[in-house]
Amino acid sequence: MDMSEAASARRIELQFDTEPRGYTISLQPGGIEELGHIVYPYARGGKCALVVDAAIRGGHGRRAEAALRDAGLEPVVSELPSGESSKSLARVEALYHRWLENGLERGAPVVALGGGVTGDAAGFAAATYLRGVPFVQCPTTLLAMVDSSVGGKVGVNVPEGKNLIGAFYQPRAVVMDPEVLRTLPSRELSAGLAECIKHGTIRDPELFAWMSDAMHAIRSLDAVAVMELVERNVAIKAAVVREDEREAGVRAHLNFGHTFAHAIEATSGYGVHLHGEAVGLGMLAAAQLAADLGMADVEVRRRLEEMVAAAGLPVRAELAGCESLRAAMALDKKVVGSRIRFVLVPRIGSAEIRDDVSEAQIDAAWDSIRS
Amino acid sequence: MDMSEAASARRIELQFDTEPRGYTISLQPGGIEELGHIVYPYARGGKCALVVDAAIRGGHGRRAEAALRDAGLEPVVSELPSGESSKSLARVEALYHRWLENGLERGAPVVALGGGVTGDAAGFAAATYLRGVPFVQCPTTLLAMVDSSVGGKVGVNVPEGKNLIGAFYQPRAVVMDPEVLRTLPSRELSAGLAECIKHGTIRDPELFAWMSDAMHAIRSLDAVAVMELVERNVAIKAAVVREDEREAGVRAHLNFGHTFAHAIEATSGYGVHLHGEAVGLGMLAAAQLAADLGMADVEVRRRLEEMVAAAGLPVRAELAGCESLRAAMALDKKVVGSRIRFVLVPRIGSAEIRDDVSEAQIDAAWDSIRS
Repeated sequence: MDMSEAASARRIELQFDTEPRGYTISLQPGGIEELGHIVYPYARGGKCALVVDAAIRGGHGRRAEAALRDAGLEPVVSELPSGESSKSLARVEALYHRWLENGLERGAPVVALGGGVTGDAAGFAAATYLRGVPFVQCPTTLLAMVDSSVGGKVGVNVPEGKNLIGAFYQPRAVVMDPEVLRTLPSRELSAGLAECIKHGTIRDPELFAWMSDAMHAIRSLDAVAVMELVERNVAIKAAVVREDEREAGVRAHLNFGHTFAHAIEATSGYGVHLHGEAVGLGMLAAAQLAADLGMADVEVRRRLEEMVAAAGLPVRAELAGCESLRAAMALDKKVVGSRIRFVLVPRIGSAEIRDDVSEAQIDAAWDSIRS
Repeated sequence: MDMSEAASARRIELQFDTEPRGYTISLQPGGIEELGHIVYPYARGGKCALVVDAAIRGGHGRRAEAALRDAGLEPVVSELPSGESSKSLARVEALYHRWLENGLERGAPVVALGGGVTGDAAGFAAATYLRGVPFVQCPTTLLAMVDSSVGGKVGVNVPEGKNLIGAFYQPRAVVMDPEVLRTLPSRELSAGLAECIKHGTIRDPELFAWMSDAMHAIRSLDAVAVMELVERNVAIKAAVVREDEREAGVRAHLNFGHTFAHAIEATSGYGVHLHGEAVGLGMLAAAQLAADLGMADVEVRRRLEEMVAAAGLPVRAELAGCESLRAAMALDKKVVGSRIRFVLVPRIGSAEIRDDVSEAQIDAAWDSIRS
C-alpha cells in the first residue's frame, strides 16, 4: 500500500493491489462532492445505480445524487431501510428488478452510500448483476470505513445466520468522506470505535496508545484526529486481509471479541446491542479468559476496559444464561470449523488462537461482563 | 491446454489454467464411477452436496451417489426439476437452506450432475454459499459438455430475461462421462450438436468437415467418435474463452445464430423449441443474412443447412411475425449493447461482427427459415 498525503492531510489516497485489478481508497473531507468524478470513468453509458441507506437519503443521499448528476451521470436511486434486515436476498432481488426495469447495462456502476448493511447488500447485488458490474463504496459510518468496506467481502444474511451467502468482490473505488461522521449518532460512532480498539489491541500498540490519548479529540470529531484514525485503521484492516492471502489464519485475528459478540447478539435478539457494542463487551470477556488462562496479565483487561469505556461503549450488560450463551457460540462455530476457537491477546498488540478452553472458564468470562 | 491421451482414447484429460486456480476436465467412459475419487480431495469434512436433475435422479443420480459414498463421502442430495424454470433464485435459495440444514461447511464441495440448467443453478449456489465452496461439474448432456460446463459462467434467470444474475466461478474439476449420452433423448443429442456445428462454422473448418463425415457415427454414439467430438468442441470453447481474456470480443463469436435463436425462444414461449433447435435455425438465418449482404457465398448456407438437417435438427419452423421477432431481438440487445450486433460467417471457419443491417434484410433472413 502506498500513501500519498497532500498538505495538511486534506486528502489521503490508499492504493490496493487486489485481483483482478487494484483500487484506490480516497479519504477526503467533502469526498461525497467528488463522487461524480470518481464514478464517471467506470460508467460506459450515462447510467449508474445509487443504493442509499434510507436514514441518510435526504441529506447525504441528495448530495451524492447531485454530485453524480453534475458529472453527467443519470443515477437510478434505491433506498434500503436502515438495519440488518436489509441484508436479505429479498432486498437484493428488489435491486436487480429496479436495475433491469431502468435498463442498467453491463457497464453501469453501482454506488453504495451508507453503512455496512448498505455496502454488503449493494455489493452482493453488484457482484451478481449481469455476472458483476463495477462497484463503488462510499461508507458513511465509522464502522463501515474501518471495517466492512475493506477486504472485498459482500453478502447477505439468511434466517440460519449472518453473512452465510455472499462473494469476494473488490470495489473499483472507495470514497470516504469523514465529514459525514458529523451526522452519525454518537452511539454509532462509539460502535465503530470498538473495531478500531480491536485493531490496536491485536496488532498495533502504538495505535492503542494514540487512541487512548486522542479519544477526546476523536469523539469530538476533530478533523485531523478523525483522518488519522480512519487512515491507520484502514491500513491495518488492509494489511491483515493482504497477509491472509499468503498465510492462512491471520484474518482470524480480526475475530477478537467476535465469538462472544455474536453470541450476545444472537441471544439478545439482533438490534438490542449494536454490533460494535457487542464487540466491546466481547473483547473484555476474551481479555478475562486470557487472564484466567494465565496467558495475559490482568492489566491487559484493565487497560482495555478503560479504553472501551472511554469510547462510550458499555463494559457490562444484561446477558442470557451461560448455557444459552455457550449454545449460541457453538452454533456460530458450527459454520466455521470443528471446535470453538478463541482469539486471545497475551499483551496489547498481539493475538493468538486457542481452542483448549473449558466450559467453566468460558462461563467465568461471561460473568465478568454481566451487569 | 495440455492433452494427455491414454491408449485408445479411454481417458482424456484437459488442463485449464484459470484464476485463481486451474482445473482439469476428465473425459472418460464410466467417469461417473470415478466421481468419488475426484471429489474426495476437495472435501475437508466428509460431507458434500450432490445436485441432480430430477430426470436422471434414479439412474445416473444413484450411480453418482453410490460413487461418492464408496469414496467415504456423505452426499446431501437435492433434486432440481428438469427444465429452464429451475434456473431461478428461488431454487438457489432452496439449495442454500438444504445445505445449511445439513451442516455443509466451507470445505464441502458441490457436485452438479445434469445438463446446463443444473450446472448453472448449482454452480451459482456454490459460488455464493459461504462466499464460495468447491464446485465439481458432471455434465450429462452433450450441450452441457461442449458448452455450458466450460468457461466458468454460472447463474440464473429472472422474469426479465435469461442469465441476468450470475457470476464467473471456475469449477475445481469437470467430469464428463460420454456413456451417459446413451440415455439422453435423441432430440437432446441433436440440440447439443447445434453448438458443435456452431464451433466448426465459426472457427474450425476441419471440425466441420469431420462432423459432416462422422455424423452417422456420432448420432449412433460410436464411442470413439463421441470422445473425439467432445474433446474437439471442449477445446474450441476453452480456446475462445481464454483468448477473450486478452482480446475482448472473440467470445462474442460464440453468439453465432444466438441473436436469432433468443428471439425464436422468446416469441414462441420457452420450451417449444429446445435451445439447440433454435440455434440451428438461427445459424441458417444468419447465413442467409450474410449471403444477402454479399458477404458470403450462398454455398455456405447450403452446407450449413445440410449439416443442421443431418444432425436431426429442424431447418424450418413456424415463427411469429417479423415485427415481433425484431422486437424480441431488440430486447435481447438492450441488455448487452446499444445496437443489434450480428455474428456472421463469410466462409466456414471464420466469423465477423456486423451491426449495419437493415430491417428488410433481417426480415428476409427470418423468412428463409419460416415454414
